[in-house]
Amino acid sequence: MVRPTQKRSRKAGLPPGTPMYIGERKSETTRLTLLHYDEHQAVEKPIEAVEECQSFREQPGVTWINVTGLHEVERLTQLGNTLGLHPLVLEDILSTDQRPKSEDYGEYLYIVLKALGHGDAGNEITSEQISLILGRNFVVSFLEGDSGIFNVVKERILKNPARIGKLGADYLAYALMDTTVDNYFTIFENLGDRIEALQESLIARPAPETLRTLNNLKREMLYLRKSVWPLREVVSGLQRGDSPLIQKATGLYLRDLYDHTIHVIDTIETYRDMLSGMLDIYLSSLSIRLNEVMKVLTIIATIFMPLSFIVGVYGMNFHYMPELGWHWGYPAVLLAMATIAGGMMLYFRRRKWI
Amino acid sequence: MVRPTQKRSRKAGLPPGTPMYIGERKSETTRLTLLHYDEHQAVEKPIEAVEECQSFREQPGVTWINVTGLHEVERLTQLGNTLGLHPLVLEDILSTDQRPKSEDYGEYLYIVLKALGHGDAGNEITSEQISLILGRNFVVSFLEGDSGIFNVVKERILKNPARIGKLGADYLAYALMDTTVDNYFTIFENLGDRIEALQESLIARPAPETLRTLNNLKREMLYLRKSVWPLREVVSGLQRGDSPLIQKATGLYLRDLYDHTIHVIDTIETYRDMLSGMLDIYLSSLSIRLNEVMKVLTIIATIFMPLSFIVGVYGMNFHYMPELGWHWGYPAVLLAMATIAGGMMLYFRRRKWI
Amino acid sequence: MVRPTQKRSRKAGLPPGTPMYIGERKSETTRLTLLHYDEHQAVEKPIEAVEECQSFREQPGVTWINVTGLHEVERLTQLGNTLGLHPLVLEDILSTDQRPKSEDYGEYLYIVLKALGHGDAGNEITSEQISLILGRNFVVSFLEGDSGIFNVVKERILKNPARIGKLGADYLAYALMDTTVDNYFTIFENLGDRIEALQESLIARPAPETLRTLNNLKREMLYLRKSVWPLREVVSGLQRGDSPLIQKATGLYLRDLYDHTIHVIDTIETYRDMLSGMLDIYLSSLSIRLNEVMKVLTIIATIFMPLSFIVGVYGMNFHYMPELGWHWGYPAVLLAMATIAGGMMLYFRRRKWI
Amino acid sequence: MVRPTQKRSRKAGLPPGTPMYIGERKSETTRLTLLHYDEHQAVEKPIEAVEECQSFREQPGVTWINVTGLHEVERLTQLGNTLGLHPLVLEDILSTDQRPKSEDYGEYLYIVLKALGHGDAGNEITSEQISLILGRNFVVSFLEGDSGIFNVVKERILKNPARIGKLGADYLAYALMDTTVDNYFTIFENLGDRIEALQESLIARPAPETLRTLNNLKREMLYLRKSVWPLREVVSGLQRGDSPLIQKATGLYLRDLYDHTIHVIDTIETYRDMLSGMLDIYLSSLSIRLNEVMKVLTIIATIFMPLSFIVGVYGMNFHYMPELGWHWGYPAVLLAMATIAGGMMLYFRRRKWI
Amino acid sequence: MVRPTQKRSRKAGLPPGTPMYIGERKSETTRLTLLHYDEHQAVEKPIEAVEECQSFREQPGVTWINVTGLHEVERLTQLGNTLGLHPLVLEDILSTDQRPKSEDYGEYLYIVLKALGHGDAGNEITSEQISLILGRNFVVSFLEGDSGIFNVVKERILKNPARIGKLGADYLAYALMDTTVDNYFTIFENLGDRIEALQESLIARPAPETLRTLNNLKREMLYLRKSVWPLREVVSGLQRGDSPLIQKATGLYLRDLYDHTIHVIDTIETYRDMLSGMLDIYLSSLSIRLNEVMKVLTIIATIFMPLSFIVGVYGMNFHYMPELGWHWGYPAVLLAMATIAGGMMLYFRRRKWI
Repeated sequence: MVRPTQKRSRKAGLPPGTPMYIGERKSETTRLTLLHYDEHQAVEKPIEAVEECQSFREQPGVTWINVTGLHEVERLTQLGNTLGLHPLVLEDILSTDQRPKSEDYGEYLYIVLKALGHGDAGNEITSEQISLILGRNFVVSFLEGDSGIFNVVKERILKNPARIGKLGADYLAYALMDTTVDNYFTIFENLGDRIEALQESLIARPAPETLRTLNNLKREMLYLRKSVWPLREVVSGLQRGDSPLIQKATGLYLRDLYDHTIHVIDTIETYRDMLSGMLDIYLSSLSIRLNEVMKVLTIIATIFMPLSFIVGVYGMNFHYMPELGWHWGYPAVLLAMATIAGGMMLYFRRRKWI
Repeated sequence: MVRPTQKRSRKAGLPPGTPMYIGERKSETTRLTLLHYDEHQAVEKPIEAVEECQSFREQPGVTWINVTGLHEVERLTQLGNTLGLHPLVLEDILSTDQRPKSEDYGEYLYIVLKALGHGDAGNEITSEQISLILGRNFVVSFLEGDSGIFNVVKERILKNPARIGKLGADYLAYALMDTTVDNYFTIFENLGDRIEALQESLIARPAPETLRTLNNLKREMLYLRKSVWPLREVVSGLQRGDSPLIQKATGLYLRDLYDHTIHVIDTIETYRDMLSGMLDIYLSSLSIRLNEVMKVLTIIATIFMPLSFIVGVYGMNFHYMPELGWHWGYPAVLLAMATIAGGMMLYFRRRKWI
Repeated sequence: MVRPTQKRSRKAGLPPGTPMYIGERKSETTRLTLLHYDEHQAVEKPIEAVEECQSFREQPGVTWINVTGLHEVERLTQLGNTLGLHPLVLEDILSTDQRPKSEDYGEYLYIVLKALGHGDAGNEITSEQISLILGRNFVVSFLEGDSGIFNVVKERILKNPARIGKLGADYLAYALMDTTVDNYFTIFENLGDRIEALQESLIARPAPETLRTLNNLKREMLYLRKSVWPLREVVSGLQRGDSPLIQKATGLYLRDLYDHTIHVIDTIETYRDMLSGMLDIYLSSLSIRLNEVMKVLTIIATIFMPLSFIVGVYGMNFHYMPELGWHWGYPAVLLAMATIAGGMMLYFRRRKWI
Repeated sequence: MVRPTQKRSRKAGLPPGTPMYIGERKSETTRLTLLHYDEHQAVEKPIEAVEECQSFREQPGVTWINVTGLHEVERLTQLGNTLGLHPLVLEDILSTDQRPKSEDYGEYLYIVLKALGHGDAGNEITSEQISLILGRNFVVSFLEGDSGIFNVVKERILKNPARIGKLGADYLAYALMDTTVDNYFTIFENLGDRIEALQESLIARPAPETLRTLNNLKREMLYLRKSVWPLREVVSGLQRGDSPLIQKATGLYLRDLYDHTIHVIDTIETYRDMLSGMLDIYLSSLSIRLNEVMKVLTIIATIFMPLSFIVGVYGMNFHYMPELGWHWGYPAVLLAMATIAGGMMLYFRRRKWI
Repeated sequence: MVRPTQKRSRKAGLPPGTPMYIGERKSETTRLTLLHYDEHQAVEKPIEAVEECQSFREQPGVTWINVTGLHEVERLTQLGNTLGLHPLVLEDILSTDQRPKSEDYGEYLYIVLKALGHGDAGNEITSEQISLILGRNFVVSFLEGDSGIFNVVKERILKNPARIGKLGADYLAYALMDTTVDNYFTIFENLGDRIEALQESLIARPAPETLRTLNNLKREMLYLRKSVWPLREVVSGLQRGDSPLIQKATGLYLRDLYDHTIHVIDTIETYRDMLSGMLDIYLSSLSIRLNEVMKVLTIIATIFMPLSFIVGVYGMNFHYMPELGWHWGYPAVLLAMATIAGGMMLYFRRRKWI
């Protein structure tokens, strides 16, 4: 979960439309896969030369080109030119800190969304930018890494091309977006566990580290919010059917996707509210602890200060202190002190301090 | 009151439109009841074979099919096909974590709302998803369990079919929604009692458990809010009469229902404000307690420290301490100390500490 | 100031449109008064039989029927039927927990607003529901009790029918609403006094009861807000002139009324902000007090602990303690201790603790 | 800075349109001045008889009637009638607690805004209601007192009638509004000084009075906000050119005025944010102070309690305490105690307490 | 980072449209540079006489006049007249406390935005007003100082006029705005560093100065927000293409710029949220510290008070205290006290206090 501006500043001064990958996954190779399907069959093949992508243009059926790894800038520029993408689109595909958005370029729609995942270290949430190009009869998807998030869609197509083959490229784009959003729920499952664990430990023993964890969760939530919130507008925009690339039948599915997105946003807001509430619990736990500590101190002091005073009195060296000579003086004083201590205890008990 | 994402993650990866019941009431049987009525009579009969539902299609009057229990997915799929429901509708009916919504599918409206109830354990608020399908001359209602929430409507129809028989299927749908919303008030009655009891105990003795109760109430309120808030838009959408399935006469009733919904939302917001105010009370109660404890400590210390010092002075073993030899030295010191203690008390009284 | 849902739950399960008075003023009689006026004269008479209301229908001039007391449900139902009111209107008139609203029923407008008053006990703010039916040439007003809030309007008409007689029934409705809103200012006057008194006592001596008063005021403000806020929309709706029942000339007056309503809402918001600020003052007053208490404790302890230690030293029973034998030992020690105490005092004074 | 409702309640019960001055500046005389100008010349003369105002009606050029002092209600009523003002306008001119607004009465526009100033006592911000009537070829301005805020405009006209004479009455109205808004910046200058002074003293020595000052500033800011915020809508309404009384050329100037108004509102919001931040500083300053006080107490107690215990041990009167007889016992104990005290000091230093 | 109103008040009373430089960079000279380019070449030359600017009017290609330094008011007025600028535009160019805005004057657009930079002292963020005049075939840019922010655009044009020469003056205006916005990211990079450093030090050692730094950062953020937030509306307004001066092709680039602006605003909001969270951390750190201090005090007091009492008992001078005579009395008491101290320690350990 990097800082919001860390990467952008590298690009200051470059002319607009300059493609430059600003992500961090440099080690992987850029791989292109082409999947062509219609109602009768589905064929998948890897692409070596970018020009192979051209072939589908005149064919019936839907073509899905999946691009994994974004650091081979030159090859991607080539692909962009082959597909006729606007330089700004290519720049945005490589600038992996985009907010979710959808832009209508007439012949194609450019859609950005964020896939969430767990880093290798476990808890931390990572985010991967997914770019979709939706044309009349093709979809191009760009992924930063090889998370395999779209494999489930690929398998569904390969297994049963008949069902999805009847629907157009817009349905494929919907299916990819739907898979991405459905995936959020898995992430939130884990997040919910962490939040509940935190809440437990917050009440049991409020420690400074708990506060740090709380704060980290809050920051993650802020980040998630920023990744998901604009999606709502994106999906609702697509659903309203402003673009002729989206067929009416797909509109129903997009409405469903919109519902899911609202569900995701609701969840984030709920978590945010819970985390806010937890800070209050934390602070009042501290307050309660302080109260308890102070009560102990006050009880001890209130009992022993008067007693110490009394024994001090009989430790004075005045020559004429008749009590000192009494035979029962010592036990009498001990008894008096026991009575005082007992009385104090009773007083505290009545005040519900002990 | 389960976590918001608990159930959804099970469905990640399935193709959209896959019906799968994600609720928890697996034990009950799915039961279908058909109620047909017109101005002259009302007949109720249980349905065994799903195809029996077909019969009403061509008949005059209104047909109400009530489905209780959602776990027999296959039978419900059959029912959905018989009625010509879109796969996404069926999926949503079974996905019992929907937000209230209304979707127009041309030939029918799909309406989701939430019924609230009390769990067996008593206080906890449970929520049940209610799905309504409103067609030209029929209503299908889907309930998760057998809470009997719609019995009052059924009895009203059976007793007096003349009144409701003149109005169409849209009025029946309204009546079911109205019953659900009216039921909220009973739930809120109980909630109000709990909130007031909490407020009492908050001021009387602020304990850590009170805070936990407060927090639980806040979470419940959050949950209620999420269940009710979208209803407002649903009802206002229906009332605006976008769909030809809603007659103009029913619009007046929906406006009334809209009023009730606003009333419910107002109530929730009021409770939320009250709960927020209670946290402030709680924290300041803690602060007041701390102040009191510290005052006791300070009073005790301020009185006894100087006294202990004085008796310490006359406990010193210097050979030449003339006071020690005086005959009235001891009583004089005692008197002096009593004067000091009294003066301190006066000082504290003037400062309103005691 | 009752709980928001207390009354509604009694109605759960009843069919919509069932009239049932849910207020608490059962003891009073329902009284109907008819006031008919035109440019030349104004006549007032009490109504016994509900049918008498019919007479005005065909007459020129404006008729105002004032209904006081809402518990004689049957008589009111009769009146509603005579006037041709929709059952939902009658139900709403009797359900005295409505929010301010205005509903257009074609032939008449139904307007709900809230009159505020002081209970017998004094400070507590009470609220009374006022329903207005505005027809082409008549106004019917429904009041819960006999607060006499509309007497001033009645007298104005009786004294000078010429002025108001030129204006239509819509002006009368406006005049009634204006009187109700103007009355709010008197209530707020008193509320302002209470808030200022509270602020004084908050700074002077922050006590737990002050917090309770503060909280009660906040709740009242919440309640007032709910009673007044929707009025804004009501008046602005009427002013926009959607209904043919409102003449253009009256629009100017309604714009003025809208201004007053905004003024009222502004006042409520100002009070709310003031009350929020007062909680901060309260909490920081507590903090300041704690600081003061702790300073006293610390000063006392810091001065007397070292002194007690010194006298303890010379109270030890070692055989070889040369100071004990010195002739000036005792006064020297006293002097040393006085110096130490003085030094401490200086230190505290420099730190601005005393 | 009076209470928001103080004055209004006096008017409850009066019929709408009753003119009544509710301000407090009763002592001044109502003075009318007429300034007539066109491209060639500008003439100013005081008006005695209200009818003199009529003369300008048919003349070319622009007439500005400036009214100072609002308590001679009868004379103002006369003026209103002469000018053909609606009774509600007259009432609003005299009700000096209006919010800024602009109302279109067809033949003239009625504009209300607030001039801010400093009271005689210095710091406190006072507010004066300014009413403008903009007709086809005249402007009437109503001021509560003789603050002379419009003198600068008058002198500009008298000195150089050529420039402003080319522009219409709407430009004059704009110039008056612009002068009023520009004047706000002078007030804010002073306010900024006070806020910064407060911030200084807040960190230096947080005293209860500082909190009171902070709270007063907050209330003033609330008041300013209420006086200025609606102005935005007023100016933007005028600029949109809904009224034929506003010429297109003046629209550009009004857009500039709109900018200034936004600037003023931004400033108020910034000050509000700063004041909110200052409360946090204040509370945490208190917290820091408490921490410091407690550290002193703890250090003192932690050092002297063990020492006092040790000297107590050797003050016991057991017959067989071998140490008491040792020759180096006394110095040894003193040394031990010094070591303990030194160790404690080291411990505190490592914990960064001293 | 000056106070929001500091400069404006100097202008109160002047007639609208009076040009007056209110910035602080008086020392620099006003320099004008003209850059003319088309598809084939680009020529740059400094301008001495303002009239030289006229030449480009009839030429093909795009002319960019860059003005640096705004204090030579007369020369700028001359330039304004030459270009036919409205007096209000000139006044706004010189009033360097404008909010970002864009105003359509028919023949040209006037755009204001803010460039951010670092002051000489290092951390503090400075802001410079940038005014752009976009005409049919020219752009005039006004900068307060010589920050050289537009050099990168100039060099791009001089190096490769072919690319930018094909696009119109509107693209040049876009390029200047884009450069300004891209520059923000560099500023935010530094800001992010400071915020993170603060967060570190906040948890490690919460000192009053940290709070002051936190507060300064908050104020800067407020200032940034005010500088950037309106930009969003400006760019979206330009992009919507209301003005014929903006060509459709540039619209795509403006959409990209809009994206960047949203990105900037998101970043500011994220930082604001982080800073808010840090205050909570700060306050609870103080609370935790207080708790720790109080625990130390309580532990010390609770252990040594009973012990001091015991040794006090055996320091009493009663004649008949049998224990004093016992041979093992002294060691027995020492042992008893050690036991008590140990027990206390155990108790505290179990309560997790040590």
